[in-house]
Amino acid sequence: MTVLVFLDPAYPQGRVADATAPTLMATDQGATRGDGIFDSMLAVNGKVRKLEAHLSRLVSSANIMELDIPGPDVWKAAITTALAEFRGTGTDGAGSAGAAAAAEQPHQDEAVVKLLATRGPEETKLPTCWIQVSAPSALGAQQRASGLKVMFLNRGYSSTVAQDAPWLLMGAKTLSYAVNMAALRHAHEHGNDDVIFTSSDGMVLEGPTSSVLMAHYEKGDDGTVTKRLITPQLDTGILPGTTQGALFRAAKEAGWELGYGPLVPEDLLDADAVWLISSIRLLAPVNELDGQAVGTAGVREQLTEELSALLAGIE
Amino acid sequence: MTVLVFLDPAYPQGRVADATAPTLMATDQGATRGDGIFDSMLAVNGKVRKLEAHLSRLVSSANIMELDIPGPDVWKAAITTALAEFRGTGTDGAGSAGAAAAAEQPHQDEAVVKLLATRGPEETKLPTCWIQVSAPSALGAQQRASGLKVMFLNRGYSSTVAQDAPWLLMGAKTLSYAVNMAALRHAHEHGNDDVIFTSSDGMVLEGPTSSVLMAHYEKGDDGTVTKRLITPQLDTGILPGTTQGALFRAAKEAGWELGYGPLVPEDLLDADAVWLISSIRLLAPVNELDGQAVGTAGVREQLTEELSALLAGIE
Repeated sequence: MTVLVFLDPAYPQGRVADATAPTLMATDQGATRGDGIFDSMLAVNGKVRKLEAHLSRLVSSANIMELDIPGPDVWKAAITTALAEFRGTGTDGAGSAGAAAAAEQPHQDEAVVKLLATRGPEETKLPTCWIQVSAPSALGAQQRASGLKVMFLNRGYSSTVAQDAPWLLMGAKTLSYAVNMAALRHAHEHGNDDVIFTSSDGMVLEGPTSSVLMAHYEKGDDGTVTKRLITPQLDTGILPGTTQGALFRAAKEAGWELGYGPLVPEDLLDADAVWLISSIRLLAPVNELDGQAVGTAGVREQLTEELSALLAGIE
Repeated sequence: MTVLVFLDPAYPQGRVADATAPTLMATDQGATRGDGIFDSMLAVNGKVRKLEAHLSRLVSSANIMELDIPGPDVWKAAITTALAEFRGTGTDGAGSAGAAAAAEQPHQDEAVVKLLATRGPEETKLPTCWIQVSAPSALGAQQRASGLKVMFLNRGYSSTVAQDAPWLLMGAKTLSYAVNMAALRHAHEHGNDDVIFTSSDGMVLEGPTSSVLMAHYEKGDDGTVTKRLITPQLDTGILPGTTQGALFRAAKEAGWELGYGPLVPEDLLDADAVWLISSIRLLAPVNELDGQAVGTAGVREQLTEELSALLAGIE
């Protein structure tokens, strides 16, 4: 089941739309030119995790794209409407039954909440903004549990290009995701689950839909344990990961040291653990990189468990 | 007025749709991920120019994107329907009046015919394919007549990356055009009309929606004239220009010499004329490049006239 809610000045709480019917104009520049932005969030029991961080990134993407979108409060109202519809507690009458069903379920109910904004139809050029709520795929949970086979792919850009070339839209989460999707197809065709992009000058960047994390674990002669969590630095033009950011704050509070790249592929191969982290799939351990085993057995599992617990506590 | 015709197995001649109503699913991966392809063609008096070249490029884009789209005959049938609708000679009853109006016009009637194909809605993953016909903008004719101020912008990719990184989709005309649009916005904000992309290693590539052409003109002591038309080579990952290709063939028959890059920005600044060429705007002379005057006065105008005449003869 998919729920759609459009941002519409005539509907301050958002306009609920039929997800089984056409709702976009064929001339919408989102569809004809990938000219728009998005962000994806996880809602647990009807509450969006890291809502402010996602809305802040959406605004940042809009600014980079020079896209004039409604403010955070308008999005929040529509998100509330969309989640109520999805959980069956909306105003359409299906409410009580849905809510009862949800209450009976022993596990938490999770939803993927996607925010989208395009430059709108060619005729009006008024942005089209909507929210899509759907169930998470089973694949995410499976990959969290079993880990990933990952390959490095060249993203084609130098790690320094973002600073001089704002028209390349680095750091914006745009709808122009064809290369990200093609990279994933390429990985699947070569027996891998996912990709870590490298820059043309050989630096580690990010996954097509995730951030890269690695850890070092050291136990001193006196039994002191040092744990260090490292991610590539943002000035390479990668997307600021909201989950990576939140986990870094939580890990720091829990006594971890933090580090920011530059990282090269060899750094990942030498790490005690490597993960791809994102808002929906959360923390997925990397088992293999370009066919080579990754991480230190035992340590990797322990750190994954520890960080996953920290992540579960993030609101 | 915009005409929409969808490719639909239930309608062998194409399904005409209301362009003023929503016709796309909000979950279509064209809209949510720029995951699709397109091509733009010019129709004059109801006949598409270079139809086979455009359909062939569409198939090539689909192959690079691993997108399973209907064959050329299906597209052709729908194009015929769309052009008939646009020219008022369709089956919807508005036919005779529209045709009469068109016949009364002293100038040729021109139409932009856009072919689009996406990876389809997330639920079905069946490609969504449609044709959009609309009138050309007045800006194109104006720019052909008055010429362009153009700036160089770094496309971020090396000129050799295309050969090793098929996942970057170089040479495919994908719907992920956000960078192309951002480059044009950047140019407009800096007082320019258009952009010529360069590679990170300094080679001339293409415009965001056009191919680059330059010419050398030499008159020997014996009065012999040598005219040489040059364009960047395709292995830089640029899009094969259907209009550039057709003009090259016509120019060769007319006695021109042909050349293919590598070209650097200085080559363009030293040329006797530089143009951006594309299917809709056709041949637009470049007056200025990064603020420097381009071309040899007199020669530039003569060559533009000569090549435009050749272009007008291309079917």
